[in-house]
Amino acid sequence: MEEKLREYAKLLIEVGLNVQKGQAVVIRCPVECAYFARLCAAAAYNVGCREVVMRWSDDFLERERFLRADDSVFDVFPAWQAEMLNGYADEGAAFLNISARDPEALLGVDPDRLTRASRSETAIQPYVSAVMSNACPWCVASVPIPSWAKKVFPGLPEQEAMDKLWDAIFTSVRISGKGDAVARWHEHVALLKSRIAKLNDLHFTSLYYQNSLGTSLNIKLPETHVWAGGDNTSRTGFPFVANMPTEEVFTAPLRDGIDGVVYAALPLVHNGNIIENFHFVIKDGKIVEAHAEKGEDILKAAIAEDEGASYFGEVALVPYDSPISNQKILFYNTLFDENAACHLAFGEAYPECVKGGEAMSKEELKAAGLNDSNTHVDFMVGTADLSIIGTTKDGREIPVFVNGNFAL
Amino acid sequence: MEEKLREYAKLLIEVGLNVQKGQAVVIRCPVECAYFARLCAAAAYNVGCREVVMRWSDDFLERERFLRADDSVFDVFPAWQAEMLNGYADEGAAFLNISARDPEALLGVDPDRLTRASRSETAIQPYVSAVMSNACPWCVASVPIPSWAKKVFPGLPEQEAMDKLWDAIFTSVRISGKGDAVARWHEHVALLKSRIAKLNDLHFTSLYYQNSLGTSLNIKLPETHVWAGGDNTSRTGFPFVANMPTEEVFTAPLRDGIDGVVYAALPLVHNGNIIENFHFVIKDGKIVEAHAEKGEDILKAAIAEDEGASYFGEVALVPYDSPISNQKILFYNTLFDENAACHLAFGEAYPECVKGGEAMSKEELKAAGLNDSNTHVDFMVGTADLSIIGTTKDGREIPVFVNGNFAL
Repeated sequence: MEEKLREYAKLLIEVGLNVQKGQAVVIRCPVECAYFARLCAAAAYNVGCREVVMRWSDDFLERERFLRADDSVFDVFPAWQAEMLNGYADEGAAFLNISARDPEALLGVDPDRLTRASRSETAIQPYVSAVMSNACPWCVASVPIPSWAKKVFPGLPEQEAMDKLWDAIFTSVRISGKGDAVARWHEHVALLKSRIAKLNDLHFTSLYYQNSLGTSLNIKLPETHVWAGGDNTSRTGFPFVANMPTEEVFTAPLRDGIDGVVYAALPLVHNGNIIENFHFVIKDGKIVEAHAEKGEDILKAAIAEDEGASYFGEVALVPYDSPISNQKILFYNTLFDENAACHLAFGEAYPECVKGGEAMSKEELKAAGLNDSNTHVDFMVGTADLSIIGTTKDGREIPVFVNGNFAL
Repeated sequence: MEEKLREYAKLLIEVGLNVQKGQAVVIRCPVECAYFARLCAAAAYNVGCREVVMRWSDDFLERERFLRADDSVFDVFPAWQAEMLNGYADEGAAFLNISARDPEALLGVDPDRLTRASRSETAIQPYVSAVMSNACPWCVASVPIPSWAKKVFPGLPEQEAMDKLWDAIFTSVRISGKGDAVARWHEHVALLKSRIAKLNDLHFTSLYYQNSLGTSLNIKLPETHVWAGGDNTSRTGFPFVANMPTEEVFTAPLRDGIDGVVYAALPLVHNGNIIENFHFVIKDGKIVEAHAEKGEDILKAAIAEDEGASYFGEVALVPYDSPISNQKILFYNTLFDENAACHLAFGEAYPECVKGGEAMSKEELKAAGLNDSNTHVDFMVGTADLSIIGTTKDGREIPVFVNGNFAL
C-alpha cells in the first residue's frame, strides 16, 4: 500500500502537474488526507519545486460555516484568499486539487447561500481563467475519506469501505504498485489523442444524442471547434494532465445551438448535495426547464448562478466500456463519474475548444461561439444504449457512438 | 473524554477568547488536531461568532519547506498571509492558537533560514502589535499530538503517551469533566489578581535573583511599571485570558537595567529545536554572552534576530508549587514549562506593563523604558531554591520569592 501511495503521489506531481524546477505548487487537500498531501509535497520537492503551499479544507468546518456563520460572509470572497490564488496563478504555479468530500456535506444548507458564495468567486477570476485556459498546470485527483467511502459502499464497515475505494481509485488511475504508472499513462494519453484526431478530421457541424432515458438532443458545434483531452500544454510549454483519471475527449458546443431534452444518467454531486433523476429542456442553447426528483432547489440555484450558467460549455465523449465504468461503482464524485459516462457541462467553456482559443480575449471567445460563466458543472448523460450521430459539413450522418461506445 | 474535550473547547472560546456576537475567530491548529479545532469552531458558532477562519499547520510540511524549499522564500513573508492576519487584527478578530508541535520538528534546519523567516515577520507587525497590546483577544492553548507526547513520555507506547499528555493538560487547565472549569478559572484569575495588587503596591525599583544554578541577576524595573496577569481587556472592553494555562504574574524590565548572569532552569523549545543547559551574561540590559550545551547555534540566532532580541522584555513570577510544576513533567512546550517556573523573556515587552502603555506609540513605550523587538522568547529560570529580593523606592529589601515560592 505504502508503495502504491508513493507511486500515486509521484504520478500526480510528475505527470498530472509536471512540476518544473523553481515552480510553486499549491495543493488543496482535506485535513483528513494530510498523510497523502505530505507524500505529494515530498514528491514536489523531489523534482525541485520552489515551495509547496497548502490550502487545507474540512467538510465539517465548511458545513458549520454555511449553516451558522453570519449571512454577510457569503457575498464576499475573502481578499487574502483571492490574493493567494490570483497571485500564484499569475506567476504560473501548479495547482493540485485533492477532491475528497462527503457527497452530502452541505445537505440542508440554504441554496441561496451556496449561490451567493459561488457568485463571490468573481474575485478569483484571474485564477479561474488561468486554470480554464491551461496557462497554469493543474490536476484534480482523489483519495478516500471515510464519509465519502461509506456513501460509495454503504453496506461495509468504514475501513473496508476505505480499502475498497482506494482499490477503485488505483484501478481508475492505473496504479498497480509495479511502478509502471507513468508508462501506462503515456499509452493512455496516446489512445485519447488518436480519438481526438479522428473527431477533428471529421469536423462535425452537429451531434444528435438519443437514448431510452428520453434524451433527444441536437448539439451544434462552433465552426472553429477542436476536440481536446488527454493532456494539455501550459503557458510555459510543458504538458500536464488536468484530471486523473481522465477517459474523455471533449469540445465546446455552440452557445446558442442546443435544442431538445437531456436526461441525467447518474446522480450529480454539486455543492455538497446530491441531485438525482433530473432532466433539462433546452431551447436555443438555454435551459428553459429543469426538473429533479431530488435536489431540484440545488440544481435550479446552480443554473441561476449567472447568465451563462443556464447555457452549455462542454460536450464530452466517454465510452461506456472504460476502466472506471466497468467497475460498476457509483462514485458520487464527478471526477470519476464523469469519466465513466458521456457528459455535458453547463457554464463556462474551455478556451482550448476553439482554434487559438487559449490566446483569445473573452470577447473573441464569445464571437467564436463559446459560453462564458463563473461556473462549470459536469453532469453525466451516457448510458449503455446511447447513440450519437454526427453530421458533417457536407451533410453526411456518421455514427459516433453506438450502444454507449465509440463507433468511429 | 468527549465531555472533557467539549468543556475544554467551550472554556477556550468563552473564557480564553471571550468571543462576542459578530466577531470573527481565527484558529491556528495542526491538521492532526482537526477533531479539536472542530469542537472549538462549534463552540464559537454557539456564541454567535461571525465566522471561523482556519490557519492549519503541519510539522512535516513546515520541516520539508525549511529543509528543501528554494532559499529565496525565507526572506519574504507571503503577502496573502500578511493580509489575512493584519486584516483580521484590524477588525478586532479573536485569535486562538493551538500550540502542539514536535519539539524537534526543525532539528537540523539551517539556523540562518529560521532567523530570516522570523525577520520576514515584520510584514505582520500590525497583527503582532494588536496581539501584544491586547487590542484583539487572543489565547494560546494546547492539545497533544503523537510526536510531542512521545517526547514528553519517551518510555510509553504512543496511545498511552497521548492519554497521559491529555491528563496533564486537563490538570493544568483545570478541566475535571464536571463542567466547573469556568468557575475555577474565575477563582484562579482572582488569586493572580491579588498577587498583582501586592506587587503593584510595593512598586519595587529592582529585583535581585539568586540560586544554586549560578544565577545572580539584578533587574531594574521601569518607573511606571505595572504587574499584569490572569486576564486582559481587549480594545472593545471584554476580558480574555491569553494563555491557558497561566500561573504567572509579569511585568517588563527596564531595557538597559539588567546586569549579571542567569542560568536556564529547564530546556527551551524554540523554532522546532531544543536548547539545553544554557546561560546568559548580561550587561546594561544586553546579552553579551550566550552559552548552551545543546542548540547554541539556535540560541545565538534567536538573540541576533534584531537589535531588541538581545535585550529583555518580560519578568514573570510563577511559584514552584503550582498545578503544573507539581506534576513534575517537562512538557517541552513553553506554554506549560513557563507556567511551571519563574521566567524571563528576551525580545519585545508587553505595552500593558507600563501605566497607559496599551495606548502608547512605539516611541512612547521606548521612552518609558520598554524593549522593542520582533521576537519574544520566554525561558525558564525558576528553581526550588530561587530567591528574589525586591528593593523599594525607599531602599527597603523585601523577599519576594523564598525557596522558589511567593513570600509576600
